[in-house]
Amino acid sequence: MLNIQDSFQAREIIREGKYCGYTTGAANQHVQGNLVILPTEYAVEFAAFCNRNPKPCPLIGMGTPGDPFLNSTLGELDIRTDLPKYRVFRYGELVDEPTDIDSYWQSDLVAFVLGCSLSFELPLLEAGFRLPHIEKGTIVPMYITNQQCNPAGRFSGPMVVSMRSFPKNQIKEVMHITGKFPSVHGAPIHVGDPSAIGIKNLYQPNWGESPDTLPEDHVPMFWACGVTPQVVIQKAKPSLCITHSPGCMLITDLLNKDLAV
Amino acid sequence: MLNIQDSFQAREIIREGKYCGYTTGAANQHVQGNLVILPTEYAVEFAAFCNRNPKPCPLIGMGTPGDPFLNSTLGELDIRTDLPKYRVFRYGELVDEPTDIDSYWQSDLVAFVLGCSLSFELPLLEAGFRLPHIEKGTIVPMYITNQQCNPAGRFSGPMVVSMRSFPKNQIKEVMHITGKFPSVHGAPIHVGDPSAIGIKNLYQPNWGESPDTLPEDHVPMFWACGVTPQVVIQKAKPSLCITHSPGCMLITDLLNKDLAV
Repeated sequence: MLNIQDSFQAREIIREGKYCGYTTGAANQHVQGNLVILPTEYAVEFAAFCNRNPKPCPLIGMGTPGDPFLNSTLGELDIRTDLPKYRVFRYGELVDEPTDIDSYWQSDLVAFVLGCSLSFELPLLEAGFRLPHIEKGTIVPMYITNQQCNPAGRFSGPMVVSMRSFPKNQIKEVMHITGKFPSVHGAPIHVGDPSAIGIKNLYQPNWGESPDTLPEDHVPMFWACGVTPQVVIQKAKPSLCITHSPGCMLITDLLNKDLAV
Repeated sequence: MLNIQDSFQAREIIREGKYCGYTTGAANQHVQGNLVILPTEYAVEFAAFCNRNPKPCPLIGMGTPGDPFLNSTLGELDIRTDLPKYRVFRYGELVDEPTDIDSYWQSDLVAFVLGCSLSFELPLLEAGFRLPHIEKGTIVPMYITNQQCNPAGRFSGPMVVSMRSFPKNQIKEVMHITGKFPSVHGAPIHVGDPSAIGIKNLYQPNWGESPDTLPEDHVPMFWACGVTPQVVIQKAKPSLCITHSPGCMLITDLLNKDLAV
């Protein structure tokens, strides 16, 4: 684990190749982001896709073609080196998982940084709520739903959600806290019966680990999930796409608390 | 004035060429938007500019290249015909002010729809606040500030603000009401001394009409203004740019009240 609270220093250590693991817990007052890099010829459609689907695709930063620095809007950073690990896809196939992407960078590439659920999990923890997947160090269960995203050009597909369950009497407060963070998935898209959004079996997630049997007084809550754009992009099979490797996020200088409305 | 409350019908009348005037007051429960259309080669940079400057450039809708319908995200509409009047610019020069843009449409054009201050003025009026420029039917005063927008590629420039003044004891409530609408400029960017943001003379606005002398107990409040992207685009001199003609906005199906957070 990268045990450092300063976001700039954390990126520096990663940039120098001294750390290539998960970023969970590092600089945890700061916003971490999912990364998507696409050639210009796909970038307008993907920007429109994010604009039309802000819950699963909260765009907290966007580059211009060929600019790896995002004009310092998220801090002094270099998108080519400042994530611990990347994934490189060609026509939808994973071809490489490098620790920097210097050799892949081109003048037509556009970087998109999307908010992630870490930003609303922290305020939940600070308010005293328990998150079993964090306590156990496992990955939150994620499911493909029957809710279709609003398509944009070549990008279309179902919304993916993550699930966290809470006692019935805590639902309102959890909705309130997460609702204050619309730029990082915000309030849940659904509370209660999983089948209402096309989830057949809560104990067979499409990604992450199956939850323990829900206590009787617990209600499942479902949040739009950052895996959505990954699924949508994989379906579109762009000539080139570079993302973060799961769990190896971009640590930005933005403060989680500044995202609250 | 277009005296009709249904947004679809309002667009239909405009589409058929039966109305080409201001849209203020038409379908006034619905969100009206500023229009910017740019060729794909500029669109990624402009999307990044909006993402980096959400207060002056709140992006409520975005098309994909060549799509004039915005995939119905803002209602059943055709961006080429559904605004009363357009302005066509080539390399920054106004060359035409047509009532439809069928003859200018190309497969590489991308439409951007930006929120406007009408959406937060209505809740202010409903809460009992007075807005003199509306009572008098004049245009709100607008000023170039010394606050630079966060640049993106070829797009850069100062932020433009609009001014409305209120009695000192109403400031807090006005900030609260407008702050609930972050997707349409939101809370003011500055309250008080105009010179703090580079405005030398409150009675010499760069656009709109000079306000009457402010009553002694009044404080000027300044909101990020949708004229900002127009100034920035004019400076970038793109080969082609099409906008709405001032006051002749896109009437969407979105409800103002749904923009409140």
